[in-house]
Amino acid sequence: MSSTKDIDALIDMMAKLPGLGPRSARRAVLHLIRKREHKLRPLADLMQIVAATARECDRCGNVGTTDICDICRDDRRATGLLCVVEDVADLWAMERAGAFKGRYHVLGGTLSALDQVGPDELRIPGLVARLAEENITEVILALNATVDGQTTAHYIADQIEDRVTLTSLAKGVPIGGELDYLDDGTITAALSARKAF
Amino acid sequence: MSSTKDIDALIDMMAKLPGLGPRSARRAVLHLIRKREHKLRPLADLMQIVAATARECDRCGNVGTTDICDICRDDRRATGLLCVVEDVADLWAMERAGAFKGRYHVLGGTLSALDQVGPDELRIPGLVARLAEENITEVILALNATVDGQTTAHYIADQIEDRVTLTSLAKGVPIGGELDYLDDGTITAALSARKAF
Repeated sequence: MSSTKDIDALIDMMAKLPGLGPRSARRAVLHLIRKREHKLRPLADLMQIVAATARECDRCGNVGTTDICDICRDDRRATGLLCVVEDVADLWAMERAGAFKGRYHVLGGTLSALDQVGPDELRIPGLVARLAEENITEVILALNATVDGQTTAHYIADQIEDRVTLTSLAKGVPIGGELDYLDDGTITAALSARKAF
Repeated sequence: MSSTKDIDALIDMMAKLPGLGPRSARRAVLHLIRKREHKLRPLADLMQIVAATARECDRCGNVGTTDICDICRDDRRATGLLCVVEDVADLWAMERAGAFKGRYHVLGGTLSALDQVGPDELRIPGLVARLAEENITEVILALNATVDGQTTAHYIADQIEDRVTLTSLAKGVPIGGELDYLDDGTITAALSARKAF
């Protein structure tokens, strides 16, 4: 038996992470083995801690280590305003921008007939329940501008549009964007939503 | 204090791995947290095992879990023939090709005045010692075709050229390569080393 089977297994496992492939997994593992005391062991320890403590927020689906996440517990957050995102990564992107001061609701994906993802798999019932519980007046549908994202947005709108004000993120030219590099759909959207200069 | 500090620390640590950045680290960590029982915990366990067992081969510098690596211990390997590579990743690349049946010597880098890497940091004394101990007759200098790699190859050649036959990998057009996409240096090398058709 090969004496490197654990190393091979580690490379295989790393290669399956999103964004990595066999070559980058080999490079990463070799780098970690070279610095096994200073990097590999602390990384393994930290992964154990996160595996034991990480959990989804009962209320919004954000990732944290408590039943109710930091954002849901933060009193300084605006009440009555909810931003619906597909994924925790989207929530993190919104938080990095720092422009939104309300709370979130993470769906955990998009509706997909192909992948058999229905409303119950997506925390949509939880969203409907929160509207009354938290006296929500506005829901911002910050779903991705993809077919699945927009299908899901329309489904949610059908469910709740008679109870709250529904908004969505503006579509247009990204800051720093050059027209020559934009797709037709973005230019069309930016043109039809043009504003007084 | 944020309840997500361990998760943030894990992302920071993953983002420093070669081939990953902040975005891919966030994606990978979210993916692992979502499947924390099936992916994150087994990955952490495997990293602990590798951190505890991985080591460099005393003889050639290859990575394994034994004092002397699988390749050095393999009786079916040709004796007298040594392939010198910069890094374990290069050794693995040679092994994947499956064309070399001798043994290896991993330098662990290249000579670099800038980074203060001298011969003693590079297992070059170990290479010189092996020549006599293992009755080496041919040393293949399979160092990368970079300035640092070739500088190191010339230094090693100076040390051992009077004791063994020295060879290096052929330089030329890669299999499947198109002339239009090759750099001038490669075309020049391929032309000057042209062979009878």
